[in-house]
Amino acid sequence: MKVDYLIVGAGFTGATLAERLAAAGKRVLVVDRRDHIGGNAYDEMDPHGVLVHRYGPHIFHTNSKKVFDYLSRFTEWRPYYHRVRAVVEGKEVPLPFSLATLRALFSPRLADRLEEKLIARFGYGARVPILRLREEEDPDLRFLADYVYKNVFEGYTLKQWGLRPEELSPSVTARVPVLVSHDTRYFQDAYQAMPKEGYTALFRRMLAHPNIKLLLQADWKEVEGEVKFARLVFTGPIDEFFGYLHGPLPYRSLRFRMELHPGPWAQEVGTVNYPNEHPYTRVTEFKHLTGQDYLPHSTLCYEYPEAYEPGRNEPYYPVPREENEERYRLYLEEAKKLKGVYFAGRLGDYRYYNMDQAVARALKLFEEIVHE
Amino acid sequence: MKVDYLIVGAGFTGATLAERLAAAGKRVLVVDRRDHIGGNAYDEMDPHGVLVHRYGPHIFHTNSKKVFDYLSRFTEWRPYYHRVRAVVEGKEVPLPFSLATLRALFSPRLADRLEEKLIARFGYGARVPILRLREEEDPDLRFLADYVYKNVFEGYTLKQWGLRPEELSPSVTARVPVLVSHDTRYFQDAYQAMPKEGYTALFRRMLAHPNIKLLLQADWKEVEGEVKFARLVFTGPIDEFFGYLHGPLPYRSLRFRMELHPGPWAQEVGTVNYPNEHPYTRVTEFKHLTGQDYLPHSTLCYEYPEAYEPGRNEPYYPVPREENEERYRLYLEEAKKLKGVYFAGRLGDYRYYNMDQAVARALKLFEEIVHE
Ligand SMILES: Cc1cc2nc3c(=O)[nH]c(=O)nc-3n(C[C@H](O)[C@H](O)[C@H](O)COP(=O)(O)OP(=O)(O)OC[C@H]3O[C@@H](n4cnc5c(N)ncnc54)[C@H](O)[C@@H]3O)c2cc1C
Ligand SMILES: Cc1cc2nc3c(=O)[nH]c(=O)nc-3n(C[C@H](O)[C@H](O)[C@H](O)COP(=O)(O)OP(=O)(O)OC[C@H]3O[C@@H](n4cnc5c(N)ncnc54)[C@H](O)[C@@H]3O)c2cc1C
Repeated sequence: MKVDYLIVGAGFTGATLAERLAAAGKRVLVVDRRDHIGGNAYDEMDPHGVLVHRYGPHIFHTNSKKVFDYLSRFTEWRPYYHRVRAVVEGKEVPLPFSLATLRALFSPRLADRLEEKLIARFGYGARVPILRLREEEDPDLRFLADYVYKNVFEGYTLKQWGLRPEELSPSVTARVPVLVSHDTRYFQDAYQAMPKEGYTALFRRMLAHPNIKLLLQADWKEVEGEVKFARLVFTGPIDEFFGYLHGPLPYRSLRFRMELHPGPWAQEVGTVNYPNEHPYTRVTEFKHLTGQDYLPHSTLCYEYPEAYEPGRNEPYYPVPREENEERYRLYLEEAKKLKGVYFAGRLGDYRYYNMDQAVARALKLFEEIVHE
Repeated sequence: MKVDYLIVGAGFTGATLAERLAAAGKRVLVVDRRDHIGGNAYDEMDPHGVLVHRYGPHIFHTNSKKVFDYLSRFTEWRPYYHRVRAVVEGKEVPLPFSLATLRALFSPRLADRLEEKLIARFGYGARVPILRLREEEDPDLRFLADYVYKNVFEGYTLKQWGLRPEELSPSVTARVPVLVSHDTRYFQDAYQAMPKEGYTALFRRMLAHPNIKLLLQADWKEVEGEVKFARLVFTGPIDEFFGYLHGPLPYRSLRFRMELHPGPWAQEVGTVNYPNEHPYTRVTEFKHLTGQDYLPHSTLCYEYPEAYEPGRNEPYYPVPREENEERYRLYLEEAKKLKGVYFAGRLGDYRYYNMDQAVARALKLFEEIVHE
């Protein structure tokens, strides 16, 4: 086969590039080793008619009007604010840790005092990374920092990464803030919504272009040299592409356990986190996300973090440590030596992207390469 | 790309051959111009969580233990007896036209008499094609034959085919019998069941073999000459393959209209036929087929027969007329001139196959070609 662009990976990165390039008149072949499109955002109906996310719950949120408008061409949206609670000292309290969480955990007097101090120090609406809060002098704020660190942050981080918080780069730990407001939404982005008929339907529409062909159940290694292409976009793992030349880039993996709940609802909110108990980090009830409130039963997803073992499970999260970043840069050097080969996406860039960031990155790359 | 077998079409014929050949160690590429596997048996969840058949209701039934055992490797089953009713003179009566239908339409006296005569003449359990019944001497049986012909058969056939019954070959008309029994099941086959998680899930498991790759949204014409293969199995339209050399083979097409029914059930049985009223031939309520009785709403499928126009709609039913059969034989002669190219399936053989027949045909073809 001969195409203008061979794109490896049918997730948000690959699909966005395929759609843009096809619309620009290029002939595109998208290859994925899985038997479906959508990458990790793939959703499907389970045997009980619940729309589930096979690779863990995906909630769409973005501040980018550009990304939101772009995706709106391929889906209608269902408004949805994700809410998360954490079980702390036996109580279910709102996350991110906010002024509402203070009230749920502490005496009114202590909560009042902490609230005043937080607002005075950081301003209403601030997001204070927990490691930053720990540096405060004020004994009340130090107490709070230690409390959150011990009860919400430390256990979760250990479970999620198998590493202590200090062993991770601050880019991750900054993602766990104390929120100085009463907002109990998990995200504060300007656009928060779920694709009305799900992600897979969105991907189908993105890829439904006569210039796009889809080759599934096929690994890049199997088609390399067999398909002729002018350019290559690779959204798989960059270290795999180069035959692990500089050693493997570490990833964290997850095991998902889906469980049928016989009643209409199991949880009051989409996700409940367990920073301290259980081997799983969190439980998500998909119906909150999908709005299928007509179903008399429900499906829950338990997430068990585990080590990544190539071939046995999937590489989900690049492990954000300085040494890994350095190794990645060696691969980046290799990439620069190649002509007409582009790396992108969570695995290609070895970087944690939310879905909107993956799309933004792909749109930007498209602008760079389309006129080459 | 280089493969041992290129298989055009991912329906029951193509999937069965792909599975068998892959298991025999061949490298297989399955190509389909649609964006999904499963051919006309493809099912999917609609926006309301109802499992629907995009290309019309498909009920599995077979007398072949071999076919049933083979498919059982890829699915569990949900026992299901399809029941059909026809609206005749304003009443919903059981189909096929049986002894139960007599009772639903006629006075007990007339029904008794007809029942006795049918059993005496044909034996209990017989299936008498309606055109055969019309040849009877007995005035009661002639009355019955005319009644069924006028009220059940004629209008339906006209709508379905746009042709009078006499214009069709007897192979079709024989499929509309009078059933001399009280059995109100639509089929009398030994095996009647629906794949527990649907047809698409079954196809996924059939095709989930490392030797199989899937190329979707790609027409044979686009890959011809671009993919190297030792042998070709073509399950698309044979006339299209030969560039309509001997003129197009006629097909009948259908338009499906899906409609949400707000209540839990709309019909008492899976399908209701309308031989005389409405532009549609029948209405199917999928929940009867899929067993999703937990849903508070339901989805109905209305079938509107229409002329086949290549590019605008799909070729569903080969039109069973002698002249078409003759034209098909001209194509068969062309096919015989080719080496390593095999035609099969409803479109490749230009023959009405039920799903089980398509599988049986594919299993047989596999035996013929695997040792070549
Ligand atoms: C558990 C979890 C929860 C998440 N939750 C959210 C959320 O709530 N909100 C949010 O915005 N983001 C979330 N994300 C992030 C989101 O999944 C990513 O932003 C998105 O998947 C990135 O898309 P991508 O195309 O770069 O990568 P992917 O979706 O991983 O797609 C890459 C594709 O490439 C294929 N591939 C790889 N190597 C090869 C090869 N050699 N040959 C052929 N194919 C190959 C893979 O099979 C895969 O389909 C979550 C991620 C995870 C893991
Ligand atoms: C409305 C309807 C109802 C039916 N109900 C029943 C039922 O209740 N029970 C039953 O047993 N059977 C039923 N059938 C029959 C059943 O659909 C067939 O037996 C079955 O689909 C045959 O499988 P196949 O693989 O031969 O053909 P198909 O399922 O038609 O598959 C052929 C595939 O080839 C692809 N293709 C064709 N040409 C090309 C090309 N040039 N390039 C690439 N791809 C191509 C098509 O896109 C298609 O996916 C029904 C059929 C219809 C139309």
